[in-house]
Amino acid sequence: MTPETTLTPEQILSAAEDVLRRFGPAKATVVDIARSLGVSHGSVYRHFPSKAALREAVTQRWLDQEHESLHSISIETGPAGERLHRWLTTLFAAKRKKALVDPELFATYLTLVAEHSGTVDGHLQTLTEQIAHIVQDGVWQGEFSPVPVGPTARAVFQATAHFHDPGYAAEWADERRSKADFEALWALLHAGLRGPWGATEPKPGSTGR
Amino acid sequence: MTPETTLTPEQILSAAEDVLRRFGPAKATVVDIARSLGVSHGSVYRHFPSKAALREAVTQRWLDQEHESLHSISIETGPAGERLHRWLTTLFAAKRKKALVDPELFATYLTLVAEHSGTVDGHLQTLTEQIAHIVQDGVWQGEFSPVPVGPTARAVFQATAHFHDPGYAAEWADERRSKADFEALWALLHAGLRGPWGATEPKPGSTGR
Repeated sequence: MTPETTLTPEQILSAAEDVLRRFGPAKATVVDIARSLGVSHGSVYRHFPSKAALREAVTQRWLDQEHESLHSISIETGPAGERLHRWLTTLFAAKRKKALVDPELFATYLTLVAEHSGTVDGHLQTLTEQIAHIVQDGVWQGEFSPVPVGPTARAVFQATAHFHDPGYAAEWADERRSKADFEALWALLHAGLRGPWGATEPKPGSTGR
Repeated sequence: MTPETTLTPEQILSAAEDVLRRFGPAKATVVDIARSLGVSHGSVYRHFPSKAALREAVTQRWLDQEHESLHSISIETGPAGERLHRWLTTLFAAKRKKALVDPELFATYLTLVAEHSGTVDGHLQTLTEQIAHIVQDGVWQGEFSPVPVGPTARAVFQATAHFHDPGYAAEWADERRSKADFEALWALLHAGLRGPWGATEPKPGSTGR
């Protein structure tokens, strides 16, 4: 039993996670969540005005879990290449763990994520901004070429989709293969960040087309 | 009416495509296909021993449609960077066209593709080998750095997933955005193919970890 007076949004979200794990997103109700906390459903609605708001908060919390450690890496000092590599492998490890350790909850969250594309867009933007921060550092430090930071950060995030987009979760079970693939891609991206920019357009007439 | 004696597998596959477009993969039957050709279903089974074999042949044909023009680009001579760019944009344009012009048939094919992962694996391998051919040319010609060809070709294909994996088809409706994203990614990959290889590993002790 949780005394209603001290009920926090965080407790409700933890209970909601348990209920979602047990019943799945289609069957879980606010009443189930309230019951698991020993409170009335009115107490839950005092914090979350609707079932939709609660589901969105659960989704947001799930996505936010990744932000903190990644954010720390993005604002460290040190070589940008090493930080970007560590940022990407940390993201990949977090996604892998979620998908493989608790596949049912992972599937549940994918359903919620599909419902709240605005929440997801915000999440993806935060992640891309963290990449941009590292890329910007690399350019300032002269470690990277003078790449266009925003578009390049977006390109790095898109290029690594195989290693964080849940649509590829089935590939992640083969850890050795996944990691080899990731490192091959990283070598290419890292060389690109330090490579010959400003001469990337084929010269007119030089292509033989 | 198609005389049974001259019925070709190609005619059956075209008819199957029409029937799939009209009824969807769940409802389309071999009898529907035979009826649309004015032949008995036995005539169809003479070419394809089962409904599964027919569905697989339809899938293979759909995937093969991309191979030919891409294959031509892969075996051309000329600057490897320009060819790889053209190969990728040709693939992206073909996928976009399929997804946007005929979304119902596209969805149908995705269902079939999901059933025949072996067929798809073969398709993906063929595409990756074509990229490898171009990358190898670039390395031989000295246009690209001495990259490991196989893993790099796989990395290029994975890195461009946003522009050919049907899972991202929803993004392709915004053509301007998609093309800008693709060109930003291409600039990074192209710089990577020509960039500083052999010094991509952080030096031990240099990272401050």
